[in-house]
Amino acid sequence: MTRTRFHQNLDDLKEKLLVMAGMSEQAIQRAIEAYRVGDLSICDLVVRSEPAINRMERDIDQMALDLLAMEQPMAIDLRFILAVIKINADLERVGDQAVNIAERVRDLQTSSPVDLPVDIPKLATLAATMVRHALQAFIDADPVLAEKVLTMDDEVDEMNRAVYRTLTRSIQLEPACSHQALHVLLIARNLERVGDHATNIAEDVIFWVRGADVRHHVQTGR
Amino acid sequence: MTRTRFHQNLDDLKEKLLVMAGMSEQAIQRAIEAYRVGDLSICDLVVRSEPAINRMERDIDQMALDLLAMEQPMAIDLRFILAVIKINADLERVGDQAVNIAERVRDLQTSSPVDLPVDIPKLATLAATMVRHALQAFIDADPVLAEKVLTMDDEVDEMNRAVYRTLTRSIQLEPACSHQALHVLLIARNLERVGDHATNIAEDVIFWVRGADVRHHVQTGR
Repeated sequence: MTRTRFHQNLDDLKEKLLVMAGMSEQAIQRAIEAYRVGDLSICDLVVRSEPAINRMERDIDQMALDLLAMEQPMAIDLRFILAVIKINADLERVGDQAVNIAERVRDLQTSSPVDLPVDIPKLATLAATMVRHALQAFIDADPVLAEKVLTMDDEVDEMNRAVYRTLTRSIQLEPACSHQALHVLLIARNLERVGDHATNIAEDVIFWVRGADVRHHVQTGR
Repeated sequence: MTRTRFHQNLDDLKEKLLVMAGMSEQAIQRAIEAYRVGDLSICDLVVRSEPAINRMERDIDQMALDLLAMEQPMAIDLRFILAVIKINADLERVGDQAVNIAERVRDLQTSSPVDLPVDIPKLATLAATMVRHALQAFIDADPVLAEKVLTMDDEVDEMNRAVYRTLTRSIQLEPACSHQALHVLLIARNLERVGDHATNIAEDVIFWVRGADVRHHVQTGR
């Protein structure tokens, strides 16, 4: 395999990871739409998309493994392939969170609707934006955008803590709605985990581009 | 670097991963001990152990990366190094769960104690056993033991669902204890995630030894 052919293969790998990213993002968007409008058919769509996401994860891992086995990549290419393997795993888990949310929405539909004073779609938009920015940072090899994702994670955590406080109060004031409130609380935590996966992806982009490991380091503004 | 030297380096990498595993397991054991006896000084120990776990994760990743860069490993060695990279990430997240539990135990200590009819230490023992068996499967390159871990995960999920049902009922019957019940519910979810990480580790062991990707496949008894 020539050097150029090798780089063509890296491009194909990147392309495939972006398709995977699109599938995971769509799953999250749909899960939140299902929550917003209470539509069970959208829940089904999300749950049914999981096998395709899982297949795609395996394909990408195999491609990455083949590239590692066939070539002795340069340091930057090696870091790129490892970043793809890690980002791939995070995207699959974003898909898992979408399925968890869809299943909770299904369960919520079996209880009488209650009006809880929390803005889940807002939290969802922030978490989904983190994923999108982390992916954009990957596409553009842009560590500055990746760092922005790290600071957004603090915002998601803060919103999540506020949701927790509000719902705890709702449960104490109105125990009859505790079933629904608990589901919404766990949906918020699923979204927090989406934000965590976006953070992992952003860190992998920085590691790939800069060769520095930013995990667990103090970030500006973090 | 001779072939033998390369294999010596693989052994060193494995050794280091086992030290990392010991640190993560200890963090979980301590977090549960803190919960059991309500001891804040143990919570501090858990929280203070996190930086060392994070440093160890970085060291192991760097060792693995150096091995990938310096050699053109055979297929089985390549799969071993990739398994180490993935297991390493899961062990770090087991440590994160221990910290989350320790922080919840701290928070629980600020509320009046209530007697909730759930057996968290039993759930914790099962989750910790999964991690230990997954690691033992890694040490012995034993895919059969790894498969046992996959079936144990169903048990953890079932126990977790039972905890959820019980605590939802407690909250409805006694809203005054909802703060404590919510914390315990989230501790149970942290333990469920420890079980998920053990499952990931077991799947990586099977992938390394058999070269087959078991993720998302139907397992016997699953």
